[in-house]
Amino acid sequence: MRAGVFDSGAGGLTVVRSFLEHGIFDEIVYYGDTARVPYGIKDPNTIVRYGLEAIEFFNNFGIDLLVTACNTVSAYALPQMRDKSDYPIYGVIDPGVRALVNKVEDKDASILIIGTRATIDSGRYQKELESLGYGNVVAVQTGMLVPVVEEGIFSGEVLEAILSHYFSSLSMTPDAIILGCTHFPLISDAISSYFGRKPLMIHSGEAIVEYLEERGMTGRGTETRLGIFASDNVEGLRNIATEWLGADRQFIL
Amino acid sequence: MRAGVFDSGAGGLTVVRSFLEHGIFDEIVYYGDTARVPYGIKDPNTIVRYGLEAIEFFNNFGIDLLVTACNTVSAYALPQMRDKSDYPIYGVIDPGVRALVNKVEDKDASILIIGTRATIDSGRYQKELESLGYGNVVAVQTGMLVPVVEEGIFSGEVLEAILSHYFSSLSMTPDAIILGCTHFPLISDAISSYFGRKPLMIHSGEAIVEYLEERGMTGRGTETRLGIFASDNVEGLRNIATEWLGADRQFIL
Repeated sequence: MRAGVFDSGAGGLTVVRSFLEHGIFDEIVYYGDTARVPYGIKDPNTIVRYGLEAIEFFNNFGIDLLVTACNTVSAYALPQMRDKSDYPIYGVIDPGVRALVNKVEDKDASILIIGTRATIDSGRYQKELESLGYGNVVAVQTGMLVPVVEEGIFSGEVLEAILSHYFSSLSMTPDAIILGCTHFPLISDAISSYFGRKPLMIHSGEAIVEYLEERGMTGRGTETRLGIFASDNVEGLRNIATEWLGADRQFIL
Repeated sequence: MRAGVFDSGAGGLTVVRSFLEHGIFDEIVYYGDTARVPYGIKDPNTIVRYGLEAIEFFNNFGIDLLVTACNTVSAYALPQMRDKSDYPIYGVIDPGVRALVNKVEDKDASILIIGTRATIDSGRYQKELESLGYGNVVAVQTGMLVPVVEEGIFSGEVLEAILSHYFSSLSMTPDAIILGCTHFPLISDAISSYFGRKPLMIHSGEAIVEYLEERGMTGRGTETRLGIFASDNVEGLRNIATEWLGADRQFIL
């Protein structure tokens, strides 16, 4: 099976890593819109337009399904993208909610959702969880965590100061955290340390693997071949992919 | 006189503020490429392409001159943009260097240049200053300061942690700092505090005003009319403009 993975930049490689670890695809075609990253500070109309342009990109690749790894795109653009494609498209929000429901039975559990401004403003995670009866849900926009991760900072004073900036006024200590941005799995340890406990972490990559498996939308791929494409500096993105995904990776094209 | 001001986003409004304070134009047409901001993390080829697309935007407005407020565009795209326009185009790097030369006679003065990754990588400021004989010049990429300013953080622990991250290994205490990004004037006080003294700060807006005045490229504009345009969320940018530039501002269009 050949899967497409769309992201605003490099962050979606954390989803690719989950696909590789679970060996569920023969081929993965990754497209990062690095010329226009980040999306999470931009308007819904613009995000939809970018999603539709990604469909045009993937139309050349004969993919069997497309995963939009980007939470912001998943929050705003899926219906419009589905209208323009003849393959199934999966976002990461429904899978994230599903993963949480599978693991958190207590409807009074404290649930923290973190994401970009656009993702949190969409209210998508919040509405889904509330409609399922979860009564203790808080959502926080944590946009500065994106450039910090992109700077390669995964621990230390800068990160601690930013976590404190966002979370010091929270009145809860979360039982579960939805990492509503593909960058955030890279700092999940720092987030756990901040709260002084290990909350359940919902990771988009792991969630979407489970979701696709439940729907029979996976194949087998122990030697997955990977194509990396970008709208800006594709060489840089390939270097990040090699670093994050292992140097012995087979690249196609 | 009608001036165009081009920036990757909202930051160039600090340059507009200088134009308004000095009353040097009757009309200013501002275009922020908010759909693709930030530029400073992107490739030179992409930055040049965006600069050329801005020229197409301004061609409709009958401007007398164009100022690219964005240091990153000024570092990479001016020759190509000049080839495609029939009005003069000014960047902010030569004016910044000129302003420093006017104020710092001592060639051994400690000069710190801060800017985005792309601006610093271009080496433009460094080469100009070294060719003029300044022997104690250090350049630091301080990209995280951009999203921090955009989050409205102008002081406090987050900013201090980031300043310390970038500057704690510096072996100099700067006599002068070139604020090589339009966002940075908003945190010049915090930067001064960090160094425990008040270095001379070179601000792109003030520098370009002086530069244009020296060249007779200014008019008079005590009631400057301002047009604000953006590739994404123009309403949001107009709100920022109102906040930064004064609520009684006359907007055109």
